[in-house]
Amino acid sequence: MSGRIVSQNGAHLTYGFVGLGLMGGSLAKAIRANILGGSGATGRILACDANAASLRQAEADGIAAAGFPPERADAMLAQCDVVFVCLYPHATLEFITAHRHSFKPESVVTDISGVKTALLEGLGGSIRDDVDFISGHPMAGSEKEGYAHAAGTIFSNRNYILMPRPENTPEHLAFFRNLVTAIGFTRIIETDAHTHDRKIAFTSQLCHVIASALVDSAEDTSITAFGGGSFEDLTRIALINAPLWTELFTANRTELLAHMTAFCQSLEKFRRCIEDADEERLHALLESVRVKRTDMSRIDMKDRS
Amino acid sequence: MSGRIVSQNGAHLTYGFVGLGLMGGSLAKAIRANILGGSGATGRILACDANAASLRQAEADGIAAAGFPPERADAMLAQCDVVFVCLYPHATLEFITAHRHSFKPESVVTDISGVKTALLEGLGGSIRDDVDFISGHPMAGSEKEGYAHAAGTIFSNRNYILMPRPENTPEHLAFFRNLVTAIGFTRIIETDAHTHDRKIAFTSQLCHVIASALVDSAEDTSITAFGGGSFEDLTRIALINAPLWTELFTANRTELLAHMTAFCQSLEKFRRCIEDADEERLHALLESVRVKRTDMSRIDMKDRS
Repeated sequence: MSGRIVSQNGAHLTYGFVGLGLMGGSLAKAIRANILGGSGATGRILACDANAASLRQAEADGIAAAGFPPERADAMLAQCDVVFVCLYPHATLEFITAHRHSFKPESVVTDISGVKTALLEGLGGSIRDDVDFISGHPMAGSEKEGYAHAAGTIFSNRNYILMPRPENTPEHLAFFRNLVTAIGFTRIIETDAHTHDRKIAFTSQLCHVIASALVDSAEDTSITAFGGGSFEDLTRIALINAPLWTELFTANRTELLAHMTAFCQSLEKFRRCIEDADEERLHALLESVRVKRTDMSRIDMKDRS
Repeated sequence: MSGRIVSQNGAHLTYGFVGLGLMGGSLAKAIRANILGGSGATGRILACDANAASLRQAEADGIAAAGFPPERADAMLAQCDVVFVCLYPHATLEFITAHRHSFKPESVVTDISGVKTALLEGLGGSIRDDVDFISGHPMAGSEKEGYAHAAGTIFSNRNYILMPRPENTPEHLAFFRNLVTAIGFTRIIETDAHTHDRKIAFTSQLCHVIASALVDSAEDTSITAFGGGSFEDLTRIALINAPLWTELFTANRTELLAHMTAFCQSLEKFRRCIEDADEERLHALLESVRVKRTDMSRIDMKDRS
């Protein structure tokens, strides 16, 4: 296998989307605007989704050249140079396994699943030698769902995590890095599936559990009359997609539970200071948090400059 | 005591700020822009702060007509029709008590302290009969501190909580409601000190404890390379002002600890579902959170429309 895709301009390729929800739709819109937007572009986007209305809308928007219902996925895959599988984690594994014989030879296939260890182990021998599967995780999203809320601009200045496999060709990896850079991502982190799952359990899943528990513990729904922004900031992500996050929490539960334990231990440190009204210890703890959070921002800024 | 202030146009009054930090500075800038900005306005702003550079800057900005160091606070108070005491909670109590004889007769005095029960009990008999003290809490802020970061625009569409006292005249309360409306606040909640402290312990203090514990529990400061917005949203307020929040947490610790207990119980519900990989129960719990958070947003929208 070699770099057939790479020898072509990305503007002349056929991109396939399996799943045209918030993420698939946003990626499709971003590719349409940033890669297929030039006057000489001959490339196109095909999309497969169970929601016929989303497909019709994507065609009407000029995003998708054609829409395919799930039963015609194979007909779409056979035409696609680059495939984005934008389904929930379990469905991603099932789809790639079930349709493994339908991908176009020498195509690049990627996913956006929020948990990776189980996915990559599950895929095991299901990836054909003549298909380059590059597992990725675009670190962007919205509390809103579906193609109707998709926007190609949500990737601006965001992180993209790649889990390169030994089988990935350097040319395809370079192609893919260029692709995600072109649609707005400014930092590409390359790591392994296990590290991804441990880090994401903290930055994403633990945050969603905390936001959800905070809403759950609210006395009543009129509490926002007393809000000053903090509660709103902490709980925006509690407008949660229950089926998706049920999957993510359970699929990555070992890592998530470890972070929950660490978080509860930190919370307990605060509780003891507050209970004891130990102002000196509380002040020192808060000051250490301020320094740590400032360092995080500084690293973030530096990496992005 | 009657409505001398009310008989005048707010644009002709002298406003005094005790403490010209982020909040005092922002309120002063908002009053300058929205109340004293007209061509016929004869009113002015005076400011008292220990930081001489802030006072000089406020004068250079055309915000304060004159600055007063703390030892000259009495000279300022004697001239002010409306006084905003924008100090930390303990300092607010100490200042109003120590300077009780210096307020101008028939002036309106307000504070912005984030805890109220201890303050109002502490003030007790320190409020003169000829001074109308209206305790308030503007629900806005920033993770940045000091006059240098003050901005008159941070109050747009925010909540202002008032704790009217039986002694407050209806005219002064109406005057004050108009004042905070003029500078951007769109919802004024009137309640008692105890209710304020219970609600704020949840929407504000608990959120700051959670954000701080989350940062404290992070494995390392490079974690933001794996961030997708959730962690950043949840921990922006962890760039915390340690002295201020040490005071707030300890002064309101009974209410705060009660909410921390409820939050930990909710967290424990999630932990059990995740540990058991009980997808059905987890899904139902997340769905109930989604509905509750959606209701909160709806109430928020409706109240503001």
